[in-house]
Amino acid sequence: MSRYWSAVVSGLTPYVPGEQPKLPGLVKLNTNENPYGPSPQVLAALRAAAADTLRLYPDPSASELKQTLAEYHGVSSAEVFVGNGSDEVLALVFMALLKHDAPLLFPDISYSFYPVYCKLYGIDYRTVPLDEQLRLRPEDYAGPCGAIIFPNPNAPTGIGLGLAGVESILQAHPEAVVVVDEAYVDFGGASAVALIAAYPNLLVVQTLSKSRSLAGLRVGFALGHPDLIEALERVKNSFNSYPLDRLSLAGAVASFRDETYFQQMRQAVIDSREQLALELASLGFEVLPSQANFIFARHPQHDAAQLAAGLRARSVIVRHFNAPRISQFLRISIGSPDECAALVRALRELM
Amino acid sequence: MSRYWSAVVSGLTPYVPGEQPKLPGLVKLNTNENPYGPSPQVLAALRAAAADTLRLYPDPSASELKQTLAEYHGVSSAEVFVGNGSDEVLALVFMALLKHDAPLLFPDISYSFYPVYCKLYGIDYRTVPLDEQLRLRPEDYAGPCGAIIFPNPNAPTGIGLGLAGVESILQAHPEAVVVVDEAYVDFGGASAVALIAAYPNLLVVQTLSKSRSLAGLRVGFALGHPDLIEALERVKNSFNSYPLDRLSLAGAVASFRDETYFQQMRQAVIDSREQLALELASLGFEVLPSQANFIFARHPQHDAAQLAAGLRARSVIVRHFNAPRISQFLRISIGSPDECAALVRALRELM
Repeated sequence: MSRYWSAVVSGLTPYVPGEQPKLPGLVKLNTNENPYGPSPQVLAALRAAAADTLRLYPDPSASELKQTLAEYHGVSSAEVFVGNGSDEVLALVFMALLKHDAPLLFPDISYSFYPVYCKLYGIDYRTVPLDEQLRLRPEDYAGPCGAIIFPNPNAPTGIGLGLAGVESILQAHPEAVVVVDEAYVDFGGASAVALIAAYPNLLVVQTLSKSRSLAGLRVGFALGHPDLIEALERVKNSFNSYPLDRLSLAGAVASFRDETYFQQMRQAVIDSREQLALELASLGFEVLPSQANFIFARHPQHDAAQLAAGLRARSVIVRHFNAPRISQFLRISIGSPDECAALVRALRELM
Repeated sequence: MSRYWSAVVSGLTPYVPGEQPKLPGLVKLNTNENPYGPSPQVLAALRAAAADTLRLYPDPSASELKQTLAEYHGVSSAEVFVGNGSDEVLALVFMALLKHDAPLLFPDISYSFYPVYCKLYGIDYRTVPLDEQLRLRPEDYAGPCGAIIFPNPNAPTGIGLGLAGVESILQAHPEAVVVVDEAYVDFGGASAVALIAAYPNLLVVQTLSKSRSLAGLRVGFALGHPDLIEALERVKNSFNSYPLDRLSLAGAVASFRDETYFQQMRQAVIDSREQLALELASLGFEVLPSQANFIFARHPQHDAAQLAAGLRARSVIVRHFNAPRISQFLRISIGSPDECAALVRALRELM
């Protein structure tokens, strides 16, 4: 630790994202990226925005994007917050809404960025174990707490919680913010956006990185009661006036205007997932039921770390978490049909 | 205040950026944007990056951009930090390096985001008055402190401090980080980058928004000793793995590879500034000596707020700060020769 550092810095354990190797020919199934590119309309909008107007600041309030999202999701603009990827949105959510005297609750197996945010902001938290089948049980969240956050579908399990389950958590905690992190919801999950009108304590977070093939553009958003959005705006405007650049704003708006492409691509990923799940099962894998663009699976006879290493030696990268309860699982992003086939071929060699 | 908010939220007074009106025909001299567009090579790089690869995450460590900046500024990659505009870089600097038991010092007249960051992170600060000519006097920073930050050239005055002055502050405080915020340095200031090798307590922050005409792309960076950069990386990686999207990374790299364009454009702005300063003086304005892409000026016979309103009625927007000591000044961004002429015409009507 340097004497120049603020005290908080030395205690931080930064989040480690999936690696981004730049090797050609790699079958990259480790960071849940979409195998298909973004809508051609998005690319056209980005090229049009690559103009002299970049000399000007973006709209700090991102009005057009907020309006587009509001119309798309059937809420008002005052119920929309946008940010530089859902990671930034979550970072601001943790700061603005999740720091209370009572602890924040989230699943023991969940997005591994959550405890990192807690450390950054000094948020007291308690993890709630998933059940033996790695499912989230709403009744386990009944105790006193400052707030609750969970991904739905959960990561890295891919298992979704039905809206009745989400609603029971919301009803049990009218005094606490409940954040539903829906990064993967478009691949078959049930979105809690429909519950926003009824629950002022609900905040839903989504991203354009997965289902809209825009991981490289960094746009995420949150939907919820205007009181919750106001807290986010206050913190955002005390941190960075313009987190979304002109290109990101233009591309994000265009994405929500091409519904046909969105529906086709997400269905293609869902179809590939179902096909891959069958093939993995036929290889003897235990495959958790996924509503996401990845599969979480383990093999009773093969060590997960060794499988991951064997795949890597065959130019296929998947993600292995060396963490309690899940160290025998592999998280495999859904690739193109060719990529999925390459994965299955490589696994066959390892069986 | 909502019961759902974290305690910090209700005390925040967010920064208010200059307005971004969308009226056609407006002469917009209120947010220090460059009147010229970015390099054609930047636009070409952005269009090339608007491709299917946007489905993939960006490089979280921004290696190519860091290497480009390192070579450009004659430092190592380990001495470079990049972020989503210099506002985000500053936000992370405040969190990672400026929170100490002793107060942070900055000028009483300075970038008005500084006290906002302090409030966000609970940083104790003390403002140090500029002298009667609105100049920063290094000897006024001699007292005990936790850290120091100042813009150079200062904003909104435009007045630069020579490197001897910067160095005397660094030498007086070997135990404290000294951040030099060089958002405007390319318009005639002396950069402290040359001092980095000698002072491990020096951090220099720059932006592509002004001199590189990329306010709409959101890229800023910091240069300093690897220990300081490591603190920033730790906080950044506990906040958002990918603050720079693929387009911003590509555009920023391209900007630093077109030195000819950069030199031509910044010289054009400097030339317009000198011309405008003469014209304002001939109208009776007192014009502070500017090393930035704006002019800070007051008129002994005309109230600044009234002048700003009169200009606005003539479709010319400048910035007026209703703040102690500077409420009789106007901050006028340097526009194109036509825009500067329109400003002067409008002012003549108001005299």
